Amino acid sequence: MSQVVALRKVRAEKGAELMPLEQQPLAPHEVRVRIRAASVCGTDKHIYNWDAWAQSRIKPPMTFGHEGCGDVVEVGLAVQRVAPGDFVSLETHVPCGTCRLCQTGSQHICQRLKILGVDTAGVFAEEVIVPEICCWKNPKDMDTRIASIQEPFGNAVYCVDKAKVGARSVAIMGDGPIACFAAGIAKAMGAADITVTGLSSARLEIATKMGATRVVDAGKQDPVEIIKAATDGDGADIVIEMAGVAATVKQGFAALRKGGTFVAFGIPSGDVTFDYTNAIVFKEATVLGINGRLMFDTWYQTRALLTSGLVDPTPVITHEMPLTDYAKAFDIINDPASTAGKIVLRPA
Amino acid sequence: MSQVVALRKVRAEKGAELMPLEQQPLAPHEVRVRIRAASVCGTDKHIYNWDAWAQSRIKPPMTFGHEGCGDVVEVGLAVQRVAPGDFVSLETHVPCGTCRLCQTGSQHICQRLKILGVDTAGVFAEEVIVPEICCWKNPKDMDTRIASIQEPFGNAVYCVDKAKVGARSVAIMGDGPIACFAAGIAKAMGAADITVTGLSSARLEIATKMGATRVVDAGKQDPVEIIKAATDGDGADIVIEMAGVAATVKQGFAALRKGGTFVAFGIPSGDVTFDYTNAIVFKEATVLGINGRLMFDTWYQTRALLTSGLVDPTPVITHEMPLTDYAKAFDIINDPASTAGKIVLRPA
Amino acid sequence: MSQVVALRKVRAEKGAELMPLEQQPLAPHEVRVRIRAASVCGTDKHIYNWDAWAQSRIKPPMTFGHEGCGDVVEVGLAVQRVAPGDFVSLETHVPCGTCRLCQTGSQHICQRLKILGVDTAGVFAEEVIVPEICCWKNPKDMDTRIASIQEPFGNAVYCVDKAKVGARSVAIMGDGPIACFAAGIAKAMGAADITVTGLSSARLEIATKMGATRVVDAGKQDPVEIIKAATDGDGADIVIEMAGVAATVKQGFAALRKGGTFVAFGIPSGDVTFDYTNAIVFKEATVLGINGRLMFDTWYQTRALLTSGLVDPTPVITHEMPLTDYAKAFDIINDPASTAGKIVLRPA
Amino acid sequence: MSQVVALRKVRAEKGAELMPLEQQPLAPHEVRVRIRAASVCGTDKHIYNWDAWAQSRIKPPMTFGHEGCGDVVEVGLAVQRVAPGDFVSLETHVPCGTCRLCQTGSQHICQRLKILGVDTAGVFAEEVIVPEICCWKNPKDMDTRIASIQEPFGNAVYCVDKAKVGARSVAIMGDGPIACFAAGIAKAMGAADITVTGLSSARLEIATKMGATRVVDAGKQDPVEIIKAATDGDGADIVIEMAGVAATVKQGFAALRKGGTFVAFGIPSGDVTFDYTNAIVFKEATVLGINGRLMFDTWYQTRALLTSGLVDPTPVITHEMPLTDYAKAFDIINDPASTAGKIVLRPA
Repeated sequence: MSQVVALRKVRAEKGAELMPLEQQPLAPHEVRVRIRAASVCGTDKHIYNWDAWAQSRIKPPMTFGHEGCGDVVEVGLAVQRVAPGDFVSLETHVPCGTCRLCQTGSQHICQRLKILGVDTAGVFAEEVIVPEICCWKNPKDMDTRIASIQEPFGNAVYCVDKAKVGARSVAIMGDGPIACFAAGIAKAMGAADITVTGLSSARLEIATKMGATRVVDAGKQDPVEIIKAATDGDGADIVIEMAGVAATVKQGFAALRKGGTFVAFGIPSGDVTFDYTNAIVFKEATVLGINGRLMFDTWYQTRALLTSGLVDPTPVITHEMPLTDYAKAFDIINDPASTAGKIVLRPA
Repeated sequence: MSQVVALRKVRAEKGAELMPLEQQPLAPHEVRVRIRAASVCGTDKHIYNWDAWAQSRIKPPMTFGHEGCGDVVEVGLAVQRVAPGDFVSLETHVPCGTCRLCQTGSQHICQRLKILGVDTAGVFAEEVIVPEICCWKNPKDMDTRIASIQEPFGNAVYCVDKAKVGARSVAIMGDGPIACFAAGIAKAMGAADITVTGLSSARLEIATKMGATRVVDAGKQDPVEIIKAATDGDGADIVIEMAGVAATVKQGFAALRKGGTFVAFGIPSGDVTFDYTNAIVFKEATVLGINGRLMFDTWYQTRALLTSGLVDPTPVITHEMPLTDYAKAFDIINDPASTAGKIVLRPA
Repeated sequence: MSQVVALRKVRAEKGAELMPLEQQPLAPHEVRVRIRAASVCGTDKHIYNWDAWAQSRIKPPMTFGHEGCGDVVEVGLAVQRVAPGDFVSLETHVPCGTCRLCQTGSQHICQRLKILGVDTAGVFAEEVIVPEICCWKNPKDMDTRIASIQEPFGNAVYCVDKAKVGARSVAIMGDGPIACFAAGIAKAMGAADITVTGLSSARLEIATKMGATRVVDAGKQDPVEIIKAATDGDGADIVIEMAGVAATVKQGFAALRKGGTFVAFGIPSGDVTFDYTNAIVFKEATVLGINGRLMFDTWYQTRALLTSGLVDPTPVITHEMPLTDYAKAFDIINDPASTAGKIVLRPA
Repeated sequence: MSQVVALRKVRAEKGAELMPLEQQPLAPHEVRVRIRAASVCGTDKHIYNWDAWAQSRIKPPMTFGHEGCGDVVEVGLAVQRVAPGDFVSLETHVPCGTCRLCQTGSQHICQRLKILGVDTAGVFAEEVIVPEICCWKNPKDMDTRIASIQEPFGNAVYCVDKAKVGARSVAIMGDGPIACFAAGIAKAMGAADITVTGLSSARLEIATKMGATRVVDAGKQDPVEIIKAATDGDGADIVIEMAGVAATVKQGFAALRKGGTFVAFGIPSGDVTFDYTNAIVFKEATVLGINGRLMFDTWYQTRALLTSGLVDPTPVITHEMPLTDYAKAFDIINDPASTAGKIVLRPA
């Protein structure tokens, strides 16, 4: 066995280290993937910064990173769906394969779900070993940056598709990369009016490029008022909450019309306090929790949107650098004035 | 014009008074209904007791009561769907008929919704005047007690039908009359396992009669543990929250399985604080707010369930008395140790 | 009362006559609309040509035409939703208002449905009297040609929206005006691949302008082969049958993938023979019959698509002429080599 | 390796032979099941009788039979979900595991679907080798007759559940075992009115025992008239076609109300001719093709219905005999005057 360079959380403190590891053998259902591109998620920032969530969940030493693509270089004995030479992206929800949810088409919310790069060794490395079920075959000629961001893009596809936005008004709370993707997908799927609210003028500008009808700097204007004004006072047909803080959950419900659909994707830390009775019951809202992506219906839709040209995700991909520059990548992400969308790292 | 006896909230204080009123003329879309039975709802208790909600919403003097049935005795010039002699029950959601929700099949959540007996003169009276749209024709021979409770029964039908309970496990939080109806309807619609949780042993006994597989006295046992134990540790496929307090909302989400459906019907007063991220997002829950009943699909289902004998609601109807005994009715309902389900009043 | 010029089917034979009629008084629920634009439908061609269908359904003398828009000039006593001065388009499904379907949000398929301009006096006239329920208010500044074609455009919106085309492959059988609209709407709602099949090169060119990924001249090429080739051999996710002949129904099912959705909109005359077992059962197809448009959810979507600029219907509107030129309009439509899309007539 | 007795279609002619075979080794994803009970399906009758369908599909020599249950006695190296000692029923849809349908939760309609006992060696034998994906674990104490018929019972569960029968009127065309199961399941899931139509008085009697509100001998009475009479002239809310002949397909559509749901389960041989325009388009019917059962959501529902006691399938199981009596079993089934429901064979 040879050695593999990987970015590791070595100690229970801020930071990470690039280091060589012994290459590991494959189990029967496993696949070895040589990483060609890996992108950075907010989760990786939590792990790098070693915040409260990371301290409660991550067990160093471990290799992190979960958005990635690469070439299959070896497969275990029981593998059937991929073969060496395939160019794959990685699904990060690692299902058990045997629980009731796995057996009823909902393996993405498996009862014993593990997350790649959080609960298992991740993709900020020259190679990763994943179970076969986490491999998604790409066209050979797909841009590796785009192949890498299909995982978070797929989150947005799942949210927007489930909300049925065609000819409806949509409000997206949040301006992070997934919210920006969602704006582009909502536009492609026929939303008639798209408001994106956030706090970063740079990212709101990306949202505009992706297709938002209007953006709201929530630090300066009241998103609820603006959304209501854009919808004859009724509120938006669909609200997609992607900021993940209590304030935007409240704003989202306030901006939703009676009988509307609220997509709950963002993950506030800690309890949320809100006017449940008026927000959900009297409004007769439908609230759809979303966790991950459908395995693999969402991936088929993601591929269709990206290869047909219906959505161009590149305005969201603002940076690209070698994995060896990881510290710079995290500095950019940690900068409160950052204008970064998605950063793609190159292990090779 | 002759006079009509009605139970009135005359002053901004606890209580009510039975008194004669001048009979009013009909507008073109209105219908005069001579009340044969009227049942008492929790809302009426709020009005009678003059609690904080009533003080903020009710404008005395007014006639209250909204669950009722009776005979059409006169119709306005533009009325098309009912005629004198029809035996009708009353839909209590009074829609404007012109807003977007009224024009798209959702008049029960009209943008300018009024509630019979709350915003308009109610049914604790010898007769009531309602817009045509609030009349639902019954079979002539329907038991008037049953005709009267179709409105709250319909709430339960809508909740249970929308949740698709067939061959699934269901947990109903709450043991009020609507929760007891829901237990019977869930049983009739093929729920494989029904847990009802509440605080009143008398009402939990009614729930058992209606079809609950098991009941939980939440003052003595932990409902979440019991529901999980009954569902292989997964949690219930469907939770129907009908108690309307913060504690049962939390318990309901905790008792829901991943990918499950949560029906939000109960109306907690004030904000609710809960673990939104785990309850909805990570669990990928579908939360369905429910307000009223579909006009009139739910009424067709309600009639089918009651006239086919699939559900016998009579265990929930525990008392029946003349309207003149209203003070006794409210005493029963206000008794903390009350064993009352639904009380039916007779104006005639 | 003054006189109104109308295009009448006077005798049971081919043709029609423009003639003055006495203006009629309004019933309480009726509205008088001065027609500003009226467009010609295939149904009108049947009536004009007096074919077998027309002979079995139409009772001369009568005014025909059903796609139209105009100004409200007078309203009956019971009318609530529109007022003189409103600019309206006309819904052509005239519901009874009292049957079960009318009472459950499906008035567009009323048990006693009448069709404007078929069962009642139509819009090829200076004015029309319709029940209030058939009026849809437009923005004052909407192009009258576009206002007029909203009815058939709405058919296409309902078909496409119900089929959920986002990021899916779609095959549209037929190249008539509604099929061309459907191509544009499918494009706007995110269909990833759109094949339109037909027999007229001129109309297939319109379909291409509207957004078809490819068109198939079914007289020269096999649509099923081409659709399969475009979908990795699987068949289209969604087939929308709008040609209304037995051959295209068969082709449509043959071109549908397993588990796909087939929208049945076209209306073959007489029985259809096809391989039901393989087409529907083994394929586990979902077949959605579509008749008209939702009253009025589809109209809200139609307005949103047209006023947001998401769909430009003008390539389909190929001719515009005064109502007095009606004979020329029907000559164009009856020409087998016609390149006409939609023809708009001007009564004023 | 020892020997295994199996019922074989040896030659291309009517009949079958019981004979010993060499036991085969397992591939990595395979499971060896010792059969405890196997029930006879109409498909088996086709194979035994060697009719046109059988001649076109079956390649002798082969072991047939596909409904069965038994004990896992050995598992391949890659098997994860079952272990020796498990008591399993067999799913008969054998999916490839790699096509798009397999990857999107629809493996029961796999693009390369094989059927157990038709395309692969079946269960009329002392043991069967199946891929792991075809095993469904039962409670250890489940009655083996009931465990065996879960496969066809599951067909009926899937049909009834997808049709949403709660508080609706249902017409079931057909009186075979699956139709009788469907009657019981519709009753359990709250159908308010259930008509079963067929040609065998014995089986219609079973349908009555299972819960039909009424049965129609279609040889003596007009099912369409009776269904309409039972539904105020509207037609049934839901029609489930399970007879699989052109006449019942037509009757089913004629008996369906406007806006109703038609479940297409029966499989007529050859083309079907019917009035597609009125049956589907003008009626705005939803037609749901059904093929097999959801893997494995339907199995969870099936277990819930059978173990909760909501449905007792035993009236349908009319005969039980050793596998050695197979000729007698097929004689019974081939008897035009047969009163047989389901026949269970015992290989041991």
